[in-house]
Amino acid sequence: MGVGIVDIKNTSFTPVFYDVIKTRPDDSLDHKLETLYDGLLETIQKYAPTVLSIEEAFYGKNARTALLMGHVRGVIMIGGRHSDLPVYEYAARKVKSSVTGNGNATKEQVQFMVQRLLSLKEAPTPLDASDALAIAICHGLNARSQSLK
Amino acid sequence: MGVGIVDIKNTSFTPVFYDVIKTRPDDSLDHKLETLYDGLLETIQKYAPTVLSIEEAFYGKNARTALLMGHVRGVIMIGGRHSDLPVYEYAARKVKSSVTGNGNATKEQVQFMVQRLLSLKEAPTPLDASDALAIAICHGLNARSQSLK
Repeated sequence: MGVGIVDIKNTSFTPVFYDVIKTRPDDSLDHKLETLYDGLLETIQKYAPTVLSIEEAFYGKNARTALLMGHVRGVIMIGGRHSDLPVYEYAARKVKSSVTGNGNATKEQVQFMVQRLLSLKEAPTPLDASDALAIAICHGLNARSQSLK
Repeated sequence: MGVGIVDIKNTSFTPVFYDVIKTRPDDSLDHKLETLYDGLLETIQKYAPTVLSIEEAFYGKNARTALLMGHVRGVIMIGGRHSDLPVYEYAARKVKSSVTGNGNATKEQVQFMVQRLLSLKEAPTPLDASDALAIAICHGLNARSQSLK
């Protein structure tokens, strides 16, 4: 599970942290979910973000993928609630168009633009982590445009 | 979400508690999931069960249903982990065949047999609650047969 934290001040985006929380393949599903929950809460406690943004659920793929994604999203949402963070959701298209201008951009394009927008010396890897940073940037851009209305 | 607690001693099943945890339709998904988590943990703290059994995920239906079910299952599993309960999963067919002898039994048949097996004066309602009791009975029957091997 990718995690990315960005400090957003007006038009300035500063990268704070990004990583992936990994689970052990041999663990049972409930243990894996607990690993994700614990990793998420540890990150939240360490960096004290003020909002939590996740990719909106899509169910265009198969039911099996949707079911598994649901488990993880449920855990992220509970982690957000337990940390008193408001939870925002952004569709994958919205995230991609916010950082690349193209709702159908590849993950590599997203990664390239995240690197530019955050002035990172290297491309943020793995792709799950750059995706997470993109969601945070997407929230920053949209929260800003909402406040300008 | 149906919840059912059964005290299992050898061949004797004693109903302890059953109910449904309800969410408010206007709440956001993260708030609804927190309501389920809080209701589950409150029930666990009050009745101190020693295992948590849930229906195994199935993804034969559509992806949207699977996604929503995944969120709820993720929350139940985290609730089990946070309560130090081992989490068992039983397929719906297994639950139905354990209490009615028929893997394709209707929810009403399951409800009827749960009432008989627990010697309840009235049929346990709603059907989500009788289903939850059936899953608990299913675990009792299977844990027993496993220990006889």
